[in-house]
Amino acid sequence: SNTLSIAVLPGDGIGTEVTEATLAVLEPLAKRHGIGLAFETLRAGAFCYRDTGTAMSEETFARAAKADAILLGAMGWPEIRAADGTEIAPQLDLRFRLNLYAGVRPFRALPGVPVALADPRARDIDLVIVRESTEGLFFSRDRGTVTHDMAEETLRITRTVTEKLARFSFGLARQRAARRGRQGTVTLVDKANVFRAFAFMRGIFADIAAEYPDVAHGAHYVDAMALDLVRRPWAFDVLPTENMFGDILSDLGAGLVGGMGFAPSADIGDTHAVFQPAHGTAPDIAGKGLANPTATILSAAMMLDWLAGKGAGQGFADAAAELDAAVDAAFAGGLRTPDIGGADGTAAAARAIAARIGSA
Amino acid sequence: SNTLSIAVLPGDGIGTEVTEATLAVLEPLAKRHGIGLAFETLRAGAFCYRDTGTAMSEETFARAAKADAILLGAMGWPEIRAADGTEIAPQLDLRFRLNLYAGVRPFRALPGVPVALADPRARDIDLVIVRESTEGLFFSRDRGTVTHDMAEETLRITRTVTEKLARFSFGLARQRAARRGRQGTVTLVDKANVFRAFAFMRGIFADIAAEYPDVAHGAHYVDAMALDLVRRPWAFDVLPTENMFGDILSDLGAGLVGGMGFAPSADIGDTHAVFQPAHGTAPDIAGKGLANPTATILSAAMMLDWLAGKGAGQGFADAAAELDAAVDAAFAGGLRTPDIGGADGTAAAARAIAARIGSA
Ligand SMILES: CC(C)[C@H](C(=O)O)[C@@H](O)C(=O)O
Ligand SMILES: CC(C)[C@H](C(=O)O)[C@@H](O)C(=O)O
Repeated sequence: SNTLSIAVLPGDGIGTEVTEATLAVLEPLAKRHGIGLAFETLRAGAFCYRDTGTAMSEETFARAAKADAILLGAMGWPEIRAADGTEIAPQLDLRFRLNLYAGVRPFRALPGVPVALADPRARDIDLVIVRESTEGLFFSRDRGTVTHDMAEETLRITRTVTEKLARFSFGLARQRAARRGRQGTVTLVDKANVFRAFAFMRGIFADIAAEYPDVAHGAHYVDAMALDLVRRPWAFDVLPTENMFGDILSDLGAGLVGGMGFAPSADIGDTHAVFQPAHGTAPDIAGKGLANPTATILSAAMMLDWLAGKGAGQGFADAAAELDAAVDAAFAGGLRTPDIGGADGTAAAARAIAARIGSA
Repeated sequence: SNTLSIAVLPGDGIGTEVTEATLAVLEPLAKRHGIGLAFETLRAGAFCYRDTGTAMSEETFARAAKADAILLGAMGWPEIRAADGTEIAPQLDLRFRLNLYAGVRPFRALPGVPVALADPRARDIDLVIVRESTEGLFFSRDRGTVTHDMAEETLRITRTVTEKLARFSFGLARQRAARRGRQGTVTLVDKANVFRAFAFMRGIFADIAAEYPDVAHGAHYVDAMALDLVRRPWAFDVLPTENMFGDILSDLGAGLVGGMGFAPSADIGDTHAVFQPAHGTAPDIAGKGLANPTATILSAAMMLDWLAGKGAGQGFADAAAELDAAVDAAFAGGLRTPDIGGADGTAAAARAIAARIGSA
């Protein structure tokens, strides 16, 4: 079978550590499933900006865009900022420039990992936030206007992107329904009671819903959803939403299932995709070997699954499923990373997960 | 002593029920503390819009604005909407027209009321979100532009309002510090890593912080705060934030301490203030006598406290403190409303709380 190319952008802080751990797990996995993965490591991020004056060179961007998929660690550093005071975040540029409109962020309670809520049903959490990732309030990034007296940003929602986001979300719900053996439900999260732009978005979702009669469909105001993610998160399935709302709700979701160390993500477009943990560069623990690599490893599983969907072959789908199962088995078997009070650092966690490959 | 005038706007759905229950509690409380309260009930809301063509008449607005304080139930109804698809929400008009920039939403675990988080420290939650309530994304209400292909909204942050919001927040933290006998902390919640408007806001808060050397001061990105409100909400004190962020985070906060039935709020400006529960009109239970009136009763306590701060006299401050204590005592003594699995409906809850007045 072919060898696929993976552009690896470790980034800053713990980004490099979790990426290294993930590659260490992917190697035996690829061997076992006979899938070819060729990794090319590229430099980008806040320290790259400090050292070279650009957060991601055009050449790096071009190489990343040419790869079959992009695996990213984490980028940004509080002390390194652009002239306007914002942080260096070339991962946002990738989302915009490659039109990665669907920010897929699944949340699931892993066996043995403590959940935040007291209600025992919290162990059944299994939902996916689909954060639109190319417009919404983030359209305004680099476009905000500031005078001495005031500042303004523009939230933009387009029909084209919203239709894509809706089809992606309904398709995902259909796929999950098949896997889980029960009906899928798409719940749009908006603020249509107050803003015309969200009433516009809600209307488009209702139109697209008609193409997916097998998927249930509803809508929820974002404030009510923040409440329901605390009160009954087990009741939800696929939750598409605007960019800024998705940013907020996905950190909330991570908090429910053990924290950012357990929150993988994929930014997916029609042709390209970036896979990265939802967490940041964690300056407080960077360089200490303490970072939990689970989110990145689960993101790599999403990458293999996405590649399989793009025609890379059944080996990729099998590898993805086995990687997910290996993570579950490792935690079920006692793996405890520092973020949940354990003593297994980055390398130990990677070893524990790798050890389950072939036996899960 | 003088009699103060309270404009009462019960609104729609359970708004009328929780307001009635609150007035039933305020009556014996006022008598006991010798404070004069004259209530004038005014009509506004979605059903008013349906019946009269306007959600709040100019006369009603003028009467409410002339009162010493405004007590509001809840407004809005899913099936009654404006031509642009948004809901009828004259409570937003009150915030804008009366310049009620500080949306004060305190969260505290009441004795006997189950909290959402498994960690026992969740019983120590005692924080206040100060939601800016006249601009931010809500500046765009009624101003959003929609074409066939796209929709846009404008987020605006002004120096004048941000300075007021900052002074209000630091003043509140100082006041709480005195009451609680420990240092106060203001943590601004923004998204300054991505948006210039939030870097602008952060700069203004840093300037104003210098006027309050006794109050600790920090800032937090909104996504990280959503996570921390799930992971360690007991670590926070006063959390000022932009309007839309505050809307989302305050529902999350309510979820932590028992739900919207326990979330009071006050929209406060330099001269006027509106007190209302953070919850909506709850069409599903409206008219059944099941609504939990606690949020409204606690909002009324905030009203008495605010009136005391405006010079209404010590009787008002004492009444506020006693009302808070009566709510605590009622729940500690076994009061259980339907929203937390109990059988005490609206009237029973009001009776149980009223019964503690004079004995708490
Ligand atoms: C680091 C930051 C710019 C980024 C975002 O806001 O999108 C992050 O929070 C995320 O969720 O990927
Ligand atoms: C009903 C709605 C318009 C309102 C808001 O968004 O402000 C409500 O959610 C609130 O928090 O007071």
